[in-house]
Amino acid sequence: MSVALGIDFGTESARAVLVDCAHGSELGTSVEPYAHGVIDARLPAPDDDVELAPDWALQDPRDYVRSFQVAVRRVLADTGVVPDDVVGIGIDFTSCTMLPTLADGTPLCEVDDLRREPHAWVKLWKHHAAQPEADRINAVAVERGEPWLPRYGGRISSEWFFAKALQILDEAPEVYARSDRLIEACDWIVWQLTGVESRNACTAGYKAMWSKREGFPATDYFAALDPRFAHVVDEKMSRTLLSPGTRAGVLSERAAAWTGLHAGTPVAVANVDFHGSVPATTVTAPGTLVMIMGTSNGHLLLGEELVHVEGMCGVVEDGIVPGYFGYEAGQSALGDIYGWFARTIGATHEALAADAAKLRPGESGLLALDWWNGNRSVLVDADLRGLLVGMTLATRAPDIYRALIEATAFGTRVIVDAFERAGLPVDGIVACGGLPDRNPLVMQVFADVAGREIAVAGSRQAPALGAAMFGAVAAGAAAGGHDSIGDASRSMAHLSGTSYAPRGEHREAYDILYGEYVRLHDLFGRGGDDVMRRLKRLQIEAAAAPAPA
Amino acid sequence: MSVALGIDFGTESARAVLVDCAHGSELGTSVEPYAHGVIDARLPAPDDDVELAPDWALQDPRDYVRSFQVAVRRVLADTGVVPDDVVGIGIDFTSCTMLPTLADGTPLCEVDDLRREPHAWVKLWKHHAAQPEADRINAVAVERGEPWLPRYGGRISSEWFFAKALQILDEAPEVYARSDRLIEACDWIVWQLTGVESRNACTAGYKAMWSKREGFPATDYFAALDPRFAHVVDEKMSRTLLSPGTRAGVLSERAAAWTGLHAGTPVAVANVDFHGSVPATTVTAPGTLVMIMGTSNGHLLLGEELVHVEGMCGVVEDGIVPGYFGYEAGQSALGDIYGWFARTIGATHEALAADAAKLRPGESGLLALDWWNGNRSVLVDADLRGLLVGMTLATRAPDIYRALIEATAFGTRVIVDAFERAGLPVDGIVACGGLPDRNPLVMQVFADVAGREIAVAGSRQAPALGAAMFGAVAAGAAAGGHDSIGDASRSMAHLSGTSYAPRGEHREAYDILYGEYVRLHDLFGRGGDDVMRRLKRLQIEAAAAPAPA
Repeated sequence: MSVALGIDFGTESARAVLVDCAHGSELGTSVEPYAHGVIDARLPAPDDDVELAPDWALQDPRDYVRSFQVAVRRVLADTGVVPDDVVGIGIDFTSCTMLPTLADGTPLCEVDDLRREPHAWVKLWKHHAAQPEADRINAVAVERGEPWLPRYGGRISSEWFFAKALQILDEAPEVYARSDRLIEACDWIVWQLTGVESRNACTAGYKAMWSKREGFPATDYFAALDPRFAHVVDEKMSRTLLSPGTRAGVLSERAAAWTGLHAGTPVAVANVDFHGSVPATTVTAPGTLVMIMGTSNGHLLLGEELVHVEGMCGVVEDGIVPGYFGYEAGQSALGDIYGWFARTIGATHEALAADAAKLRPGESGLLALDWWNGNRSVLVDADLRGLLVGMTLATRAPDIYRALIEATAFGTRVIVDAFERAGLPVDGIVACGGLPDRNPLVMQVFADVAGREIAVAGSRQAPALGAAMFGAVAAGAAAGGHDSIGDASRSMAHLSGTSYAPRGEHREAYDILYGEYVRLHDLFGRGGDDVMRRLKRLQIEAAAAPAPA
Repeated sequence: MSVALGIDFGTESARAVLVDCAHGSELGTSVEPYAHGVIDARLPAPDDDVELAPDWALQDPRDYVRSFQVAVRRVLADTGVVPDDVVGIGIDFTSCTMLPTLADGTPLCEVDDLRREPHAWVKLWKHHAAQPEADRINAVAVERGEPWLPRYGGRISSEWFFAKALQILDEAPEVYARSDRLIEACDWIVWQLTGVESRNACTAGYKAMWSKREGFPATDYFAALDPRFAHVVDEKMSRTLLSPGTRAGVLSERAAAWTGLHAGTPVAVANVDFHGSVPATTVTAPGTLVMIMGTSNGHLLLGEELVHVEGMCGVVEDGIVPGYFGYEAGQSALGDIYGWFARTIGATHEALAADAAKLRPGESGLLALDWWNGNRSVLVDADLRGLLVGMTLATRAPDIYRALIEATAFGTRVIVDAFERAGLPVDGIVACGGLPDRNPLVMQVFADVAGREIAVAGSRQAPALGAAMFGAVAAGAAAGGHDSIGDASRSMAHLSGTSYAPRGEHREAYDILYGEYVRLHDLFGRGGDDVMRRLKRLQIEAAAAPAPA
C-alpha cells in the first residue's frame, strides 16, 4: 500500500493524517496541541514578565516541531503503517504566520539575547498590531498607483506579510537587522523537515503581493515605505517560488530520526490550509465554488483568466491548482456569529436550530447585516459592525438565530454575484470545514438563498487531506503517488453524498429579502451612513475615558 | 380625620386606596383581580364555545363592580377607617375602554339574547381589531381636512372610541342598533356608583375627538364614515362633558350597601389613569413634564395655550388640570423592551443592570431604535420596529441592555425636543409608575440623556392617589376635602426625595449619540428607508403561507 502523510498546522494544534494514495481512505489521525498555544498576554516562562500589547498574537516555533514529532509518531503507531509505505509528505499551515530567522533557519527567539524581544517570535496570522504599517502600505500603493493593488481588492490587510515585516523594522530595528531571513512558518517547517530553504508560491501570492508574471512589488515601492526596507526581498526572502505539489526536497536524516520515517521521503512545498483544501473537496477546475465553513467562511474559485473581482482577498496564478488562477474571497465571521448568539443567550445550537428550522423565509420579521467581525468581501472593511432590524415584543431567540444564518447566506450570495459579474461562473458549490456536519439548517438556508445545490465534501479534515494529496504529488506516480494534483484529487478526494438542494418555494421570498439586504449593505457599507464607523470610534474613546462615577 | 377613597381600575385588577386629605398619607391599599381578567381567546363559560378573533381584547363589566366591592370592603376593614371619615370618592380607569348599554346602564352583554355576541362586551383599551375602522376615520378626516386632526398628531388610533364604536356598527349592526348608550367604562362605573349617567371631559377629549371649544366632530363627518353613524353622539352619547374634579353625583343607596360606605358620599367625575396621575406627582402647572414609566411610557405636560406638537397623542383643554391645556405624548414600549430582552436571554434585570451601569456612554459600541412596539410619539406609526446596530463578537448582554435603555431615553428626548420646539418649556421632570423604584439605572440614563434632573414621585400608586385627590375635590374643603386640584395636590401629593441629576461628564458623548439616534430615527421613521414596514408585510405573508416542507 502507498500512503501519503499530511500535516495540518492549525491555530492551536498540529493534525497528522495518513491517507491511502489509491482511494483516499483516511487510515488514521492524530492531533497534538502546541505547548504554548497562542501567546497573546505575556511571553512564556521564564520570560513571562514581558507583557504583550493588545492585538498581539505570537507563537513558539519549537511547538510546531514538537507537535509534528508527537502527532506523526502516534499516528504511525496507531495505524501500524510502516515507513516503507509512506511515499510522500505534505504540510499546510495558517497564513500569514511568519518569523525572523538566522541564515541557518534558527528562529531569532531562540537566540539568547533576543528571546525577551517579542518581535523575535512567530507572528501568528491573527496578530493585529501592524495596522499602522498596513495603512502605510495601502496609502503609498494608492499614491503610486501600484499595479498589484487591484489583485487584492484594493486593500492590503494588517495580517499580511509585509505589514508584519514592516512592524518589526518600525518597532525593533535591531531585530530586523539581525534577521537573515523573514519567512512564512509553513516554509520554515518544510525547511526543518528537508534541511533546505524553499518558498511556496501560494503564500507569496496571497499574502506577499507576488505574482508569477510580475514578481514582487518594485524596490522603489519598498523604499518609499522606508529606505531601510528597499531590499527586503533580496536581503531576507527569495524570488524563487514553487507551485503547490512541487517537491521541496526530501526528509533529512535529522528529521527522519524524529519519527522513524525514512530519510529521503519526498516532501512537498508548503501550502495554506484554505487553499490546500480545494482539491481535497474534488475541485480542480473552474465553475465550482469551494466554501470552507467554520468560525469564518472562505470562498475559493478557479478561473481560466485574470479578472478583477470586487473585494476579493487575492488572485494568484497557480496559487491553488497549477494552470489556473486561484481566487479567494471570504466572510470574516460565520460560525463565530451563531456561536456569539448562542453563548449570549445561553442556549444550544441544537435547540435554536430546531425552532428556527420551522420558520418560513420572512417569518421572523428580521433582517441582519452579518458584520460582527467586519466585512472581508466584498467591502474589505474591518470597521463595519453587525445590524439587526425588525424586532417586536413577540420576537423570539430562534427568530434572531434564523436571521443571523440568513444574513451570512446573503453575504455569501453577494460574493457569488461578484464572481459572476466579473465573468467567473459559479455553477455549483462544495462545502467543507467543521460547520456542514454540525448545522444542516445553515446548509439548507445557504442553498435556498444561493439558489444552487451545495454538496458536502467527504473528508472532515480537508486541509490535512489536501496536504497529504500534495505529498502524494511530490512523490509522483512512479513512487506510488500521483503525477498531478488532478490525478490525486480524482483518486483520493470524495464527496460525502450529502447535498442540499435549493427549495423553489423559498426562492421568491429570499429574492425579496436579499434585495433588502443588498440595500442596507450598500447604505451602511459603502458610505451612505457611516454610523458603524462612528460607533466604533466612540467606543474606543469611551473605553479610554475615566471610569464612571 | 378626613379620608378620600381612590379606586384605580387597571388592566387586570382594581386597586382601592384610602388617603388622608390633610397630608396625603396612604392609610391602606387593597387590590382585587378581575374574575375574568382580559378576555382574548373565548367568551367566559358557559359561552366558552364562542371564540374571539386575533387582536380582540374584552372584559366583563360585572368584574369591575365585584372587584370594587371586595377591594373597598377589605381596605376599610384593614385600616379601620369608618364610613363617617370618608368624604369623597374618585376613580380612574384604563382608556379607551368602552361598552354598549341599555338606557338604564345595563351592559348589552347582560341581555340574554346578546351575551354570546362578542360586540356586546366591554372592548378593553388594547382591543386592536378596529384598525380598518381607524383607517377609514383617518382617511375621511384627511380628505375632508377635519380641523381636529392636528390635535391628535394627525392620526387617530384603532384603540380609540369611534374606531371601536364603528367596528360594532360594521360587524354587528344589530348590537349597534340595540345600544342605547356607548360609554367609556370609567363613566359607566361612576354611573353604577351614583345611579346617574355622567361623562368626563378627559376621555372625550383624548379618545373621542371632543374639545371644549369645538365639541365633537360634525354630523357630516360621521355621516361620511357611514350614514347610520351620522348621529352617534346625539343618539348614544352626550354633549355634556364634565372636567376632572367635578362632582358627578353622590353614592347611591344601592352602591353604598355594597361596601358599608354612606349613601350621599360625593363621587368625582371619572378620570384616566395616566392623566389623573399628574397632580398626584405634585404637578399642577406648566413647565414640569410627568413621565408615567411602566411597560410603556406616558408623557404629560400642561400648557397655557393651544399649540401643535409634532406627533402628540392629544391635547385637551381642562383635560388634566382645569385651566390648562393638557398635552399627552408617549412611547408605546419601555419596561416591555427591557423585559423582552431579559426574558429572551434568561437573565435578571438586576444582573444585567449591575454590569450595564459600569459602562460609559458609547462604550457598548451599540445604538438602538426603541420601536419594539411601534412608535407612538412623535412618529405615530405602529408599523415601525426595533433596530440594533454596532454588534461585534465581543458584544455582551449588558451592552445590549444598556443600549436598549439609552434608546428609550433618546426616544423621550425626541418628545421633549418636540414640546420645546412647539413653545412648551420642559424645565423639570417628575417620574412615577412602577419603573423608577425598580430600575435606578434607567432613571440615571434618562437624566443624563435628557440633561435634566428627574424627581421621583412619592407615591407608588400615583393613579389611585390621583383618583382619591379628585374625590377630595368633589367633596370640597368645607366637607374636609379640597376646593381645587391645586389645593389637593399641595396637601396630598409629595415627591419621594429621590432624584437623578444629569452627570455633566456624560453630556458630550450622549449629545453625539443622540445625534446618531435622530439621524437613524428620521431615516427609518420618516420614509427614507421603509425596510421595517416591508419586513412586517413579508412576515404577515410568510405566516399565512403553507408550512415549510
